[in-house]
Amino acid sequence: MNIKFLESNIRTIPDFPMPGILFRDVTTLFKNPQCLHELSEGMSEMYRNKGITKVLGIESRGFIMGPVVANNIGAGFVTLRKPGKLPAETYSQKYEKEYGFDSIEIHKDALTPDDVVLIHDDLLATGGTMRAAYDLVKKLGVKKIYINFIIELAALNGRSVFPEDVQIDSLIVY
Amino acid sequence: MNIKFLESNIRTIPDFPMPGILFRDVTTLFKNPQCLHELSEGMSEMYRNKGITKVLGIESRGFIMGPVVANNIGAGFVTLRKPGKLPAETYSQKYEKEYGFDSIEIHKDALTPDDVVLIHDDLLATGGTMRAAYDLVKKLGVKKIYINFIIELAALNGRSVFPEDVQIDSLIVY
Repeated sequence: MNIKFLESNIRTIPDFPMPGILFRDVTTLFKNPQCLHELSEGMSEMYRNKGITKVLGIESRGFIMGPVVANNIGAGFVTLRKPGKLPAETYSQKYEKEYGFDSIEIHKDALTPDDVVLIHDDLLATGGTMRAAYDLVKKLGVKKIYINFIIELAALNGRSVFPEDVQIDSLIVY
Repeated sequence: MNIKFLESNIRTIPDFPMPGILFRDVTTLFKNPQCLHELSEGMSEMYRNKGITKVLGIESRGFIMGPVVANNIGAGFVTLRKPGKLPAETYSQKYEKEYGFDSIEIHKDALTPDDVVLIHDDLLATGGTMRAAYDLVKKLGVKKIYINFIIELAALNGRSVFPEDVQIDSLIVY
């Protein structure tokens, strides 16, 4: 994967969503056909021979590359959504945010005990949302869980909130 | 495209999001690898030879097949989002909903006058959101606009809100 090429196509926006935050904007990656192709090929290559049966994407930027990779490696795609968005029965996982709590939901019948799962989101910051997603999937009981991000903000040490034996891959580390 | 196969994998949920609504649930399509593959191949085939340079997905279920098709046909993927979600400068289009108003946004630099655009969402109901997306893209001035849905609810006559010369394709009509 040409990481330098991908990196050069990420836009950095100061003070979004609040003052002092340097926002890494992946929309400039996705709108560039060469970057989209590079992400598609590179990410799929990373997970092709792991027996993954379901790729899970976290609402809503995780919905973008998740299905592309799922389709490339012959897996299905499952959404992890904000409360009240999924129409059938769900399991829910609460987690703490900077101000108050949030939760993430999955359809009760989205996974089976035989599934090997890749959970994808665009960015690893403090890791709160992904940790909730991991806990939710862990409770449902699948065979194995992989975690993937396009970008990791190393200074926020999001990796530290996960058990040590979890495989977490990120393509671009700031 | 095997439409019958796709149709048989859509789940129908009564009374969601409110009493009296029969909700067509596409999550059961996406989680099935054969359906995801069929959608990917079929939709890409429909748009492969039209010179499309950007596929636009409407937040958030339009983010799922939009990037898959974009990647397959060598286009870029652009998000149309709810207010305040896009980090750089945006154009916005207001539209009327059943109760009050909503709006949809696009990055100012997401499109160029040379772009040929496919706007995708999962479902055509009354057409309000897609019409706003269409108006927004039309104002930006691209070469041509195609519109695609996985599902069309014909009884709601969403097609009637678009100019007659717009090409609107839906795979499954209820």
